[in-house]
Amino acid sequence: MDDQDRTPGAGPTRRKALGFGAGVAGMAAVSAGAAKAAPASAAKVDVVVVGAGFAGLTAARGLRAAGHSVAVLEADDRVGGRTKPGKIAGEVVDLGGQWVGPSQTRLLALAKEYGVATYQQFTTGRNIADLAGHRAEYEGEVPALDPAAMAEFGEVVGKLEALAASLPVPRPWQSPAAAALDEQTIETWIQANAATAAVRSALRMIVRAVLSAEASQVSMLCFAAYAAAAGGFSPLISTRGGAQDSLFEGGVWQLAAKMSADLGPAVTLGAPVTAIAQDAAGVTVQTPRGAWRARYVVVTAPPPLAARIVYDPPMPAARDGLTQRLPMGCVIKAHIAYARPFWREQGLTGLVLSDATEFGPWFDHSPPLGSAGALVGFFDGGPAQRWADRPAEERRAQVLKDVARYLGEAALHPTDYLEEVWTRAPLHRGGYVASAGPGVLTAFGPALLDPVGRIHWAGTETAEAWVGYIDGAIRSGERVAKEVSARF
Amino acid sequence: MDDQDRTPGAGPTRRKALGFGAGVAGMAAVSAGAAKAAPASAAKVDVVVVGAGFAGLTAARGLRAAGHSVAVLEADDRVGGRTKPGKIAGEVVDLGGQWVGPSQTRLLALAKEYGVATYQQFTTGRNIADLAGHRAEYEGEVPALDPAAMAEFGEVVGKLEALAASLPVPRPWQSPAAAALDEQTIETWIQANAATAAVRSALRMIVRAVLSAEASQVSMLCFAAYAAAAGGFSPLISTRGGAQDSLFEGGVWQLAAKMSADLGPAVTLGAPVTAIAQDAAGVTVQTPRGAWRARYVVVTAPPPLAARIVYDPPMPAARDGLTQRLPMGCVIKAHIAYARPFWREQGLTGLVLSDATEFGPWFDHSPPLGSAGALVGFFDGGPAQRWADRPAEERRAQVLKDVARYLGEAALHPTDYLEEVWTRAPLHRGGYVASAGPGVLTAFGPALLDPVGRIHWAGTETAEAWVGYIDGAIRSGERVAKEVSARF
Repeated sequence: MDDQDRTPGAGPTRRKALGFGAGVAGMAAVSAGAAKAAPASAAKVDVVVVGAGFAGLTAARGLRAAGHSVAVLEADDRVGGRTKPGKIAGEVVDLGGQWVGPSQTRLLALAKEYGVATYQQFTTGRNIADLAGHRAEYEGEVPALDPAAMAEFGEVVGKLEALAASLPVPRPWQSPAAAALDEQTIETWIQANAATAAVRSALRMIVRAVLSAEASQVSMLCFAAYAAAAGGFSPLISTRGGAQDSLFEGGVWQLAAKMSADLGPAVTLGAPVTAIAQDAAGVTVQTPRGAWRARYVVVTAPPPLAARIVYDPPMPAARDGLTQRLPMGCVIKAHIAYARPFWREQGLTGLVLSDATEFGPWFDHSPPLGSAGALVGFFDGGPAQRWADRPAEERRAQVLKDVARYLGEAALHPTDYLEEVWTRAPLHRGGYVASAGPGVLTAFGPALLDPVGRIHWAGTETAEAWVGYIDGAIRSGERVAKEVSARF
Repeated sequence: MDDQDRTPGAGPTRRKALGFGAGVAGMAAVSAGAAKAAPASAAKVDVVVVGAGFAGLTAARGLRAAGHSVAVLEADDRVGGRTKPGKIAGEVVDLGGQWVGPSQTRLLALAKEYGVATYQQFTTGRNIADLAGHRAEYEGEVPALDPAAMAEFGEVVGKLEALAASLPVPRPWQSPAAAALDEQTIETWIQANAATAAVRSALRMIVRAVLSAEASQVSMLCFAAYAAAAGGFSPLISTRGGAQDSLFEGGVWQLAAKMSADLGPAVTLGAPVTAIAQDAAGVTVQTPRGAWRARYVVVTAPPPLAARIVYDPPMPAARDGLTQRLPMGCVIKAHIAYARPFWREQGLTGLVLSDATEFGPWFDHSPPLGSAGALVGFFDGGPAQRWADRPAEERRAQVLKDVARYLGEAALHPTDYLEEVWTRAPLHRGGYVASAGPGVLTAFGPALLDPVGRIHWAGTETAEAWVGYIDGAIRSGERVAKEVSARF
């Protein structure tokens, strides 16, 4: 098929490819754009990929494997997106995404391809739960609540599993149940479905830990769909067998670095995309480091950041409206190094789930070899929002105070401390994932996936499985590479 | 007080002025910014105002009156913001904001100053309501519902009035009741407080007409606060005595044009602000038409558009997070001209409230003198979102079909038709106003008003009264002019 046939508006099949956002006005604007010449100096490739996170790097690999030339433009001075390397007490750690679970098969396949080994999250011993004033130690995956609340917790988890199982992914808005789920917050659902303070508090904490957002802020449809994309609610929250099952020796970030090394000079760092113009023949992608010209462009930035690119013609109302309504979660990640994993000596795993702290949950993150100890944990949702703009030393003091409350005074004497304030990072403005308030997915959901002319969308928010995780980012990159390849 | 004392971080009073978003890191970034030199070619003024809507023009007038030099930078090729002039069947009309009510005293004062007269919205005759399958004609302000639902409607309006009266404006999040209101959508509140289908449908339609958003999308706190800022729920929805009481002869837009004419060369059109850098001595504001240098800058763009400016140093997490969470409403406004106001001949006012149409509500908008007829109405919320990207001729056909359903076949034969698709307009991306989903105002609300270093915020979203209206925009401009003047 030649380019002429690919011009938006050439026929009914094109209307479909343009997506639900692009009507006559959109097409007229695309035609008008055709008159504009691309800059003579623009570098020319088949496809430009915006963003060198796992989605963008995977898309570029897929497109190259299909015989297309690519340029990956990354705003930051490193690849990896919402994964990032750090070093604490001599150990390489992940300042962003880090875990992998057994059903995250695309991430596991990537690690296998590059020969990066995994090891299981430490779970030997007793966890601590402190929810709604009831403090207890427990083993395994189900947090200890006030005994009177345990039965209800089981029932509510059952309801969540049934909801998740009922939703089609990646288009949950197509479910007959979607409207009723989408008109309420998770908090409203919790209040209607959980009577005990302990179960309510546990659910709020789980939402915070899973979505980096408050139960009051997110649509129940979004939450149920998020669980659906993970294969259920339990895989989301479980360590063993779930999303927190294992870690990568040397950190997950190295996989992004290895993909980037394979792509070589196709990856340009320090090139924030400021504008994307499309015309009848292709796209022109502007950065302060020059312009790129391509047949198609894949944008992997999450919706609220993709909104900050200037598009010519402007985005259809559906797509722009979506990007106004999918805020990033709020998250700060902190690593704390100790001379030894002193909690293990008390028979504790180090895992603490508490609704009485600002920081948390946190996990044992001691290096797999050696005698040193380490914890890793989060300020998520409301606490992240409250702490992001405060001085680093105040955050550190709060982290140590919160950890000491459960693991003892030894927690006050770390050998090192390292944090990443994703919510304030100018190129990220949050993490782990963008999520939708009520009424958004049912009204604007299709714009998450529908291409706009020559612009295709990827990123973990668009994944058909494991939305919000590295595995989802990889899946979205694979999907978009096929989608774009099919247009050549 | 000299500039040195005004440097962020110089003392406790400055910490307050910087707002809750700016901690040590923010201050460090401001200090780092001080090293950057302003472009030698930058035009120099005391204050730059971003946006030449009613907020920006009022701010500029106020600042100039206080003895400060100003530059107003407007992205569009006209002033007026969310007001805009149009011409239909030879009559000047407002394609954006148009009405004024008796408690909108700042807008009325502005009209008086410029000698622009008002005339009352036509209300002689019977209105039509068609809600939840019950069609009836009625006079006055209270829509006719299924008789069995009228008592409940009165009760629910009473509850809404009590809620609105209980909230402090412009900081509703300070109310003890704020958290409970903010964790639910308006739809959840409706379901808990209205049992009859007619009342539920009426409330949903009112939300759509007032906020240009769906009841499922907006926080109950946001809605109640919006009513609070209007002096109650009834002023929002009433014609006589309320927000739709009167219109301006020749259109309200001329007031913006007159303010701009008074400001003369201080207003620069076609100058979209792309970046704002602040340092110890001032701000540098970038546009494609050059840079401006000033001591302070006032940004009047609504939050989701202000988010698309590049800030150096970057915005604190609180402010950036807010701007990710306040989407514009969805609205399309249509004017329809007829040879005569044929509905008046049937004793109808022309006003129709229906939940069975895509278009609506609509109002008589016949010119005050002469024999011609005209209607003006809206696609709001969901319908606007569904229709914004469709072809103009399809929208026109839908409008005429919907109007004819209630006013008769004569509606199918207009003499002229004119519309503004605010939701697709690249420089607006929605209207009338940005509103918050659940969990946003209680967490991020203060960032709406708190200055960030040398950047101050205005626009109708920040108003202490009549948020979302022209009157609120003017009030915000007056408030910010005082706020900035006090820093010189």
